[in-house]
Amino acid sequence: MREFLLKASNAFTADFSLNDIAGAGRMDVVCRCVTSSLWLSDQLRKDTKFYAVLEGKPDPPKLIKFEPSKMKRFYPDERNIASHIRLALIGKKESGIEIERKSFEEFLKENSKKQIIYLHKDGIDIRKFEFGENVFFVLGDNKGLDENSEKILDEMNAERISVGKNTYLASQVISIVQNELDRRL
Amino acid sequence: MREFLLKASNAFTADFSLNDIAGAGRMDVVCRCVTSSLWLSDQLRKDTKFYAVLEGKPDPPKLIKFEPSKMKRFYPDERNIASHIRLALIGKKESGIEIERKSFEEFLKENSKKQIIYLHKDGIDIRKFEFGENVFFVLGDNKGLDENSEKILDEMNAERISVGKNTYLASQVISIVQNELDRRL
Repeated sequence: MREFLLKASNAFTADFSLNDIAGAGRMDVVCRCVTSSLWLSDQLRKDTKFYAVLEGKPDPPKLIKFEPSKMKRFYPDERNIASHIRLALIGKKESGIEIERKSFEEFLKENSKKQIIYLHKDGIDIRKFEFGENVFFVLGDNKGLDENSEKILDEMNAERISVGKNTYLASQVISIVQNELDRRL
Repeated sequence: MREFLLKASNAFTADFSLNDIAGAGRMDVVCRCVTSSLWLSDQLRKDTKFYAVLEGKPDPPKLIKFEPSKMKRFYPDERNIASHIRLALIGKKESGIEIERKSFEEFLKENSKKQIIYLHKDGIDIRKFEFGENVFFVLGDNKGLDENSEKILDEMNAERISVGKNTYLASQVISIVQNELDRRL
């Protein structure tokens, strides 16, 4: 299983407007990461789960979990994904989405038995790295990870892995990682 | 220079609603490809141009050209990019976007002196391929390329290059290609 956790440091934690997804604390970043991690051309992946910790106003933190095998009526465009996130945030039951009151640190520690990988520009080249069966990738949003989050990851001995010397969008990083893992199969 | 041409077989060629970007003939695919080809984390690339031939109703074909060095007030979310496309389609002057009455075939033939690469699942592995200085990538939208378009590409001796055995979203393919080319530098 592949798992991705995005730390969405400003993403709203309550109702927001579908006409201003980027204005909802850059919820567009979350939506693009859902698409890049969970979609193949015309289907959802069965080998991946995606999570985001929403840390924006007014009620942080909220952990949102996507389980592709249960997701219904999802499409890869930002507005569609945002519409499901929004409904989940206002308390509607959304198939394939769960929301929990859980912080970045708490959720990471729950997953400490897995191979934790911190996706970072200055890490080991992904093409030279050996992955295990259950990989748990962590990445920051457009602001990157703060010092305290990096400290938590260091304490858990997370490996820093890099997809290249450029700083890519989080969604681009995920596409590159998924492709690298696909090629290993 | 890197150039990407998306054949957007249903994308609308006149005004459309920003509240239903996917419903505008899958304009969301075009928007995501703009983001994946032209953005790095916090800036636009200077090494790439992106084009899409819009072939949807009511007035096809329209070629839309993005020139990142001139793009102003662009953000990587689908709605922002769609808003610029929409304004250009209804005749407003949009910095960094040009629209021409030109078909897929005409535009390809204009670029026949470049190294034409058709991104296709069953092509040569991208990691084994030598790229020249000026590469012109062609790819299909969610429907892929039709037979006639493939015939044109074959007649131009376009190389078929693959990023992997899965069928990815067009935007994912572009992210993988950009990363591969970045790594060659």
